[in-house]
Amino acid sequence: MSQHVIAEVMASSEGRMLGDGLQWPDIKEILARCKDWKDWYGVVASIGDRYEALAEKSLRANHRVSAGELFWRACMYYHYAQFYAFETPEFREAGQKKKVELYKRAAPLFYPPAERVEISFESFTIPSYLRLPPDRKKPPCAILIGGLESTKEESFLFENMCLSRGLATFAFDGPGQGEMYFQTKIRSDFERFTSAVIDYLERRKEIDAKRVGVLGRSLGGHYAPKSAAHDQRIKSCVCWGALYELQTYWESMHFLTQQGFRYCSGQPTLEAAKEYLKIIDLQGWAERIRCPLYIQHGARDDLIPVNQAERLAREARNTERLVLQIEPDGNHCCHNLYHVTRHAMADFLAETL
Amino acid sequence: MSQHVIAEVMASSEGRMLGDGLQWPDIKEILARCKDWKDWYGVVASIGDRYEALAEKSLRANHRVSAGELFWRACMYYHYAQFYAFETPEFREAGQKKKVELYKRAAPLFYPPAERVEISFESFTIPSYLRLPPDRKKPPCAILIGGLESTKEESFLFENMCLSRGLATFAFDGPGQGEMYFQTKIRSDFERFTSAVIDYLERRKEIDAKRVGVLGRSLGGHYAPKSAAHDQRIKSCVCWGALYELQTYWESMHFLTQQGFRYCSGQPTLEAAKEYLKIIDLQGWAERIRCPLYIQHGARDDLIPVNQAERLAREARNTERLVLQIEPDGNHCCHNLYHVTRHAMADFLAETL
Repeated sequence: MSQHVIAEVMASSEGRMLGDGLQWPDIKEILARCKDWKDWYGVVASIGDRYEALAEKSLRANHRVSAGELFWRACMYYHYAQFYAFETPEFREAGQKKKVELYKRAAPLFYPPAERVEISFESFTIPSYLRLPPDRKKPPCAILIGGLESTKEESFLFENMCLSRGLATFAFDGPGQGEMYFQTKIRSDFERFTSAVIDYLERRKEIDAKRVGVLGRSLGGHYAPKSAAHDQRIKSCVCWGALYELQTYWESMHFLTQQGFRYCSGQPTLEAAKEYLKIIDLQGWAERIRCPLYIQHGARDDLIPVNQAERLAREARNTERLVLQIEPDGNHCCHNLYHVTRHAMADFLAETL
Repeated sequence: MSQHVIAEVMASSEGRMLGDGLQWPDIKEILARCKDWKDWYGVVASIGDRYEALAEKSLRANHRVSAGELFWRACMYYHYAQFYAFETPEFREAGQKKKVELYKRAAPLFYPPAERVEISFESFTIPSYLRLPPDRKKPPCAILIGGLESTKEESFLFENMCLSRGLATFAFDGPGQGEMYFQTKIRSDFERFTSAVIDYLERRKEIDAKRVGVLGRSLGGHYAPKSAAHDQRIKSCVCWGALYELQTYWESMHFLTQQGFRYCSGQPTLEAAKEYLKIIDLQGWAERIRCPLYIQHGARDDLIPVNQAERLAREARNTERLVLQIEPDGNHCCHNLYHVTRHAMADFLAETL
């Protein structure tokens, strides 16, 4: 591991970091201070600490909106400190826990606030956040699903896009993700957790639970369509990058991503992980999707090949409406085009809900 | 003029551009495509055109929130295409007009919307935009003043910060600025235009005109305290960079900024401009400020020396409350620290209004 890993991480994730709220001057500082990949966690976390101190200062002055934004920023730096730390699980876990704690402090201070919700489901507690648009009664709701190492906390800016379009948002960690990793690893029935979320939303009077959509990002671009196939209460589905199955391109994935799959599925080796992850397959599911489906995928995605999106679109032939948006210059999840592509997904949800 | 001008512009303005809403991938593209300073206008404007096309597409699909944001982005690229084009007035004027047109299209689509207001004042029409926080009755209002080449359109992100803190916003172009440049150049009585704005706000029932504050940026950091000295209806004043007078450091200013002062004051030569700009002087005014005053200034400001801020703070001894926030690593208006300093000014306005 060395400087070239940093270059690879930046090549794939610069747009993702910027699009999720990291600031360019901070990224410049990270690059200047990281001599080696092993420096990454400490350097990025130290910037998180700086934002946390600013947040504390704002809170002491009763500047609640600033404190909320600064705690959220601190959270994002801890997220990106640990996001690929699969080979240093002590960093991974410390970063996750700190990130969760920082977001908990930020959430009630947001405008509009995020309400922490913990849903009991079988032996699990699903950690999640609900936000309501301030000036709309009984809004529809977008359920936001993360990916392999993106979690509910990373949805904040996308939530803001939904909120300004009149949608409530509900972001949760499912199996293998964020806080849920400590309860259960990647498993074959993520869609049942989505349904548990909808059961909960039906009990929330502020929301019109007859108009619920789902968006999933990266590996969430597998869970979201599977959830839509499983639960007809879902009235709109967006794949922020589609993932049909993993087996055919496993070998070509970046080493850190393979390690991520191994870690999040709780498997001892890469070989075992690959075998276990045969459970990730939309065969038999895609044609059961009825609701409108929007798939955004980068033609230059070197993590999940674009033919995965094309296959899903082909098999999802029973959808009410299908948009397959292939961005010719887009990388994984079109993160490099975050500034010109993300709004279209929020628009689709708002239009179809 | 050549490549080194681009390097100078970036050194002073990278943070300003990012803080005002330009996107880092676009800035990278600008730097890659501009071989020479003479390329700047065309390259930056072409990115504006790209956003305008995206905005038109969103509008056709009735995606109004996206269209608003994309027209605003297009507007910002036109703004930064022309911001230093003082030696090519044809670009300067074309860029200004396009920018104004794009913002006019964006404004009603914002969330919350911006209402265009044209205030008749003597022989002038003051162009301006009013925004109201969606969930607050009779909010206080922050009047936002631009600088030498920053205008009402550039306030959008700062407006959002005010709005989320419960403040209405009113951004206008005064003498020499933006649209007003075509009516009147820099003159000695900017504060009378601010008062005309307050007269107007007193007639707006949605606003609590007894709680009006003013913020000025760069040269606006001269106009704002002068306005507060002139009009006791102003209950809070923020200098986003302070400017007491221009004479003592005129020679050390960047050539493009000198040209900007010449252009915006309508003078034929730099010498004439320097002489004319003796009207920019807070002597006799500073001690008349009574309301709370917040001054944020970069210790490394190489355009307006930090001693300008210190002098204003020293002489503004009759203020109810004074905060002089010198940022040790801050450049002009602390633009390089935009991500960690701007919120404090919105907090001060919200706290004191």
